[in-house]
Amino acid sequence: MVTTDARLIALDWGTSALRAWLLDADGAVLDERATKQGVMQVTDGDFAGTYDTLVSDWTAAHGPLPALACGMIGSRGGWAEAAYVDTPADPATLAEQLTEITTDHGPLSIVPGVMQRGGDGRLADVMRGEETQVLGALASRPELAEDSWLVLPGTHAKWVAVRDGRLSSFTTYMTGELYAVLSEHSILGRPAAEAGDSQDDEAFTLGITTARDTGDAGGVSALFSARSRMLAGELAAGATLSYLSGLLIGEELRSVFATGQTRPALCLIGDEALCVRYRAALACFDLADVTTLADAARLGLWQIACAAGLLDKD
Amino acid sequence: MVTTDARLIALDWGTSALRAWLLDADGAVLDERATKQGVMQVTDGDFAGTYDTLVSDWTAAHGPLPALACGMIGSRGGWAEAAYVDTPADPATLAEQLTEITTDHGPLSIVPGVMQRGGDGRLADVMRGEETQVLGALASRPELAEDSWLVLPGTHAKWVAVRDGRLSSFTTYMTGELYAVLSEHSILGRPAAEAGDSQDDEAFTLGITTARDTGDAGGVSALFSARSRMLAGELAAGATLSYLSGLLIGEELRSVFATGQTRPALCLIGDEALCVRYRAALACFDLADVTTLADAARLGLWQIACAAGLLDKD
Repeated sequence: MVTTDARLIALDWGTSALRAWLLDADGAVLDERATKQGVMQVTDGDFAGTYDTLVSDWTAAHGPLPALACGMIGSRGGWAEAAYVDTPADPATLAEQLTEITTDHGPLSIVPGVMQRGGDGRLADVMRGEETQVLGALASRPELAEDSWLVLPGTHAKWVAVRDGRLSSFTTYMTGELYAVLSEHSILGRPAAEAGDSQDDEAFTLGITTARDTGDAGGVSALFSARSRMLAGELAAGATLSYLSGLLIGEELRSVFATGQTRPALCLIGDEALCVRYRAALACFDLADVTTLADAARLGLWQIACAAGLLDKD
Repeated sequence: MVTTDARLIALDWGTSALRAWLLDADGAVLDERATKQGVMQVTDGDFAGTYDTLVSDWTAAHGPLPALACGMIGSRGGWAEAAYVDTPADPATLAEQLTEITTDHGPLSIVPGVMQRGGDGRLADVMRGEETQVLGALASRPELAEDSWLVLPGTHAKWVAVRDGRLSSFTTYMTGELYAVLSEHSILGRPAAEAGDSQDDEAFTLGITTARDTGDAGGVSALFSARSRMLAGELAAGATLSYLSGLLIGEELRSVFATGQTRPALCLIGDEALCVRYRAALACFDLADVTTLADAARLGLWQIACAAGLLDKD
């Protein structure tokens, strides 16, 4: 049975997860699925086989369909290396630089990443996948387009400055990865590994305010306090990882706000539990007027697919 | 054969190494040895057996001798848990709080660590072993006693403020451990692991100046540039670890000097190769008037042994 209402397969294919949506001509969701088959989990680079398993029932029902994917699937270790477009970026500039692959299920295009070139006081920086979420957020919340921070917490948190509807500049903070390597591989992880992690909200808040109050010295000067405060009896062993998490998120916020940049709006994009932690941290910096978007990738993929005319091709 | 010129066994017993000196009544070195049997390498906590192997020929020749040890041997995972004395500390306060063990070779005392209590804008901080090196440095260079920074680079680098001959306050920077966990376990270590680490001086200096020039935002905001600059073609894959090392040492210095604290003298204490890197980094902060001490632990142990009257006991 071949039906004709499905028009696009949208894929958010990151390092550790893969989400896919079957969309109709209005971008509405006909079906969706999520797997753990992120780029790092696909064995022997068999992306074609993974894609086949993921969508074969969709194309069996609807015939070959154009597909659009964003994320690390476009990195060197992914299915095909996609370009980077320079900042400032918007749906049109991203749509112009798609990388196309032929599959048994129709043409699959990969969204380029975005590169900020170094110079003028800015460091070179890169993203892959977050650009699509940013465009989705702007489509969903047009009031953010003029001048805002879009903040995507995570392994490599991105602080994206949006101006005049475009992704203008951004900074990556390795907050999530710092937490992972320090808790798993440094001396700071040992006490909680032995005592059990108690997930202590008070210690988390103490970590945030401690990083904030380091002022210009910065949170790196307070990192060892996750151990020394325990030895001094100020912190329970089981609370040290909550404190460390607060220290690292607090240092990210201290650093951003230390530059004196202010923007009229701030929106968090991402996993709900992580956004809750960031809202708590932002409150310690007297920022309560913060909005949250749970997931913007699908809408961003739809924006780019429309700008690229992908739906006209099938 | 029992001779009477030997009066003290001095031990610098740290996490990963053990050094021992046989000293005469003037503190002069009669013999010395170094092993890799740091606290973490002693199996089943058999410190007595390790000590026996290390010194049995000395005490066979000279009879039982008092011994004084500093370092992580006095930590919870060491031979016996020694106290912490509060800042400010000097030879007298340390000598009052020795922890004594009985051994087959004579009494062995362990130097207490030093704890800085939190409050008055300072975070709780701790050291074990560095306090002894600081006292040794002050005995060797009396001109540092009035007002100076003593800097001990390493896994947990210590910046020690000395005032009026006492260890007044200090801050630990986890610079060495951050480098180790990031280069071995994070995405930042992968390019050099694949391309081979080229130990690039120019990249090291670029890392230092990059961290310095982050200003109040701090070096954490530049951490990901160890990857993004490579992807942008600004940095070779093999040079990324040198750059990362520069970034982390540069952030340590930026942080210290951001507080506006200045002191008339700065002395580096430690491993020669590491001191060379710190001198290069300090030069990027226009600090060229820096002295270096290769090893001050023995002299510090001697100062404390004399203050405690250990030589009078045998």
